[in-house]
Amino acid sequence: MKLINDRLLKALRRQPVDATPVWIMRQAGRYLPEYRQVRSQVKNFMQLCKTPELACQVTLQPLARFDLDAAILFSDILVIPDAMGAAVEFQENIGPRINQPIRSLADVEQLHSPDPTEALAYVLETIEMTQHELAGKVPLIGFAGSPWTLACYMVEGGGSKDFATIKHMLYSEPEILHQLLQKLTRTVSDYLQAQIKAGVHAIMLFDTWGGVLTCRDYQQFSLDYMSQIIATIKQASDIPCILFTKNSTPWLEMIAQSDCDAISLDWTIDIGAARKRIGEQVSLQGNMDPMVLTGSDERIRNEVATILASYGQGSGHIFNLGHGITPQINPEKVAVMVKAVHELSAPYHEINL
Amino acid sequence: MKLINDRLLKALRRQPVDATPVWIMRQAGRYLPEYRQVRSQVKNFMQLCKTPELACQVTLQPLARFDLDAAILFSDILVIPDAMGAAVEFQENIGPRINQPIRSLADVEQLHSPDPTEALAYVLETIEMTQHELAGKVPLIGFAGSPWTLACYMVEGGGSKDFATIKHMLYSEPEILHQLLQKLTRTVSDYLQAQIKAGVHAIMLFDTWGGVLTCRDYQQFSLDYMSQIIATIKQASDIPCILFTKNSTPWLEMIAQSDCDAISLDWTIDIGAARKRIGEQVSLQGNMDPMVLTGSDERIRNEVATILASYGQGSGHIFNLGHGITPQINPEKVAVMVKAVHELSAPYHEINL
Repeated sequence: MKLINDRLLKALRRQPVDATPVWIMRQAGRYLPEYRQVRSQVKNFMQLCKTPELACQVTLQPLARFDLDAAILFSDILVIPDAMGAAVEFQENIGPRINQPIRSLADVEQLHSPDPTEALAYVLETIEMTQHELAGKVPLIGFAGSPWTLACYMVEGGGSKDFATIKHMLYSEPEILHQLLQKLTRTVSDYLQAQIKAGVHAIMLFDTWGGVLTCRDYQQFSLDYMSQIIATIKQASDIPCILFTKNSTPWLEMIAQSDCDAISLDWTIDIGAARKRIGEQVSLQGNMDPMVLTGSDERIRNEVATILASYGQGSGHIFNLGHGITPQINPEKVAVMVKAVHELSAPYHEINL
Repeated sequence: MKLINDRLLKALRRQPVDATPVWIMRQAGRYLPEYRQVRSQVKNFMQLCKTPELACQVTLQPLARFDLDAAILFSDILVIPDAMGAAVEFQENIGPRINQPIRSLADVEQLHSPDPTEALAYVLETIEMTQHELAGKVPLIGFAGSPWTLACYMVEGGGSKDFATIKHMLYSEPEILHQLLQKLTRTVSDYLQAQIKAGVHAIMLFDTWGGVLTCRDYQQFSLDYMSQIIATIKQASDIPCILFTKNSTPWLEMIAQSDCDAISLDWTIDIGAARKRIGEQVSLQGNMDPMVLTGSDERIRNEVATILASYGQGSGHIFNLGHGITPQINPEKVAVMVKAVHELSAPYHEINL
């Protein structure tokens, strides 16, 4: 199906666009009252992910409100551990728990190697329903967690402040961790291939916790596995891949070697400085601090203008936040941001048309 | 008093040394059973900071165990808000709370502008006692929190995951935040001057939370104020200043402009890469991941060797962890690290002697 709005895909390929495309990490989420309404219909968060009608409905909600240039599948990175047999539980206001954390080689071996077309059929069904509803209006982004980030949750048993448990494994029994990461890499690859077959137009890998590693360990325990996943995707299709490691700005050159099409930046780096470093190799996504959305309308427009000016002329920029939008944000502020991106970016694209 | 071991001061001035000096952030702390014993004698953490005999005793504890090249004053960055009249409370296993957070201009105006020689006399007394006990064995490092990091605690009322409250202030009422930061800058400057008069040999500024800002806001709301503090210190003495902003590796060039003598690095950057970027301007401190100390002795020695090799030949490196040591670390592992630093670094200094 031909896309009506293909700004995102063009920007991912650094082809000319009329305005900078914009979407928002976690755009279908708790800051929207209509999301909270749907969420209240099911007993827990995982149930929402596992009910394609509702997941599809929630995916489309932000597009009804805002002039966004992409939809992103509503799901969670922890559907993978769930499909592998780790009991995932979402506790309200606390975050995810995995009640039997992975601590030994035996634990790793007991994990399933699921066929995503069966174990994660609910996600594929959500994608198909969403594509039908979108009818080519905007592209749909699929996603998965990075093997390292999934391993963090599975070994720690939930979120963590210092990642003491997985780092102890990394520094004392790295071979167990590599076994787990290899198993996750195969599953994530299969899962993303299945998402592509179901119809997503682009893929994003979320490596929320790669930035807690040293440079050397990041390469070995996170980036190398993501590169393997991207290589598998690239063998089978020309679907663009976006890679996001929070707190990874010291390593942009290394990440740009991974054959990803775009790097999603957190807000700690000036996007113009990032473009100078790697802008000839990849597109850049980002990078507004989500908390700017707690400021005045004028402050939001100023920040959008600053980021657009810093990126400068030409394509290759996808406007986004530097991390997921948080529940306390007023949706009207998002509208201000989206409008500002389209309005204020147009002059930077005139020479391309 | 002439120092017997002056490796730290020489490395801070990039003068030749016989081995790389090493000390550890939070080296006097909960991982030491003898610290826990002293801590149990007082009713709360703040009481320990406020009792010079005990604070001095605790400062010296790690030096009795390990061949460290520096002592660091035992205290807490929150003695400043405490002296300014914000009620600081340390809750076991939760962290600090400030029960009346700063949210308005009136709140800022009500804060005291304390004279450190009175309000913080207990710290100065600790320094004098410690200097007497050290008798020139190693230098004593004094420290303070950065204005931005202190403001984070004072506005949020404690630690935070997303710093939503202070960022809302930053993005919607920046002038209130600047008033607070200016007040803190004056107090921190006076406090560090008083520490220097009391006898510390070097100063470290801890900017634990500067790394949550954008590049532009970091400059304006954190680095500029730290630069003012350093300028005040440099006017009055030649005491070297170490600056530590966690998660600041994208901004090293900017930080090196601050007239600090050394930058303390977290573990996310390869120290050799950092040296290439700014090693002609400043010394570098760091940068082992504290969690390496949960690994085997061999793994610890290997990591020490990797970091030393990455820094390479010559002076200007102070070995340290990339963040404070955590309570679960076995002190014997620290001994392994300290020994490895001195042994393995000697060959990198031979050409200098």
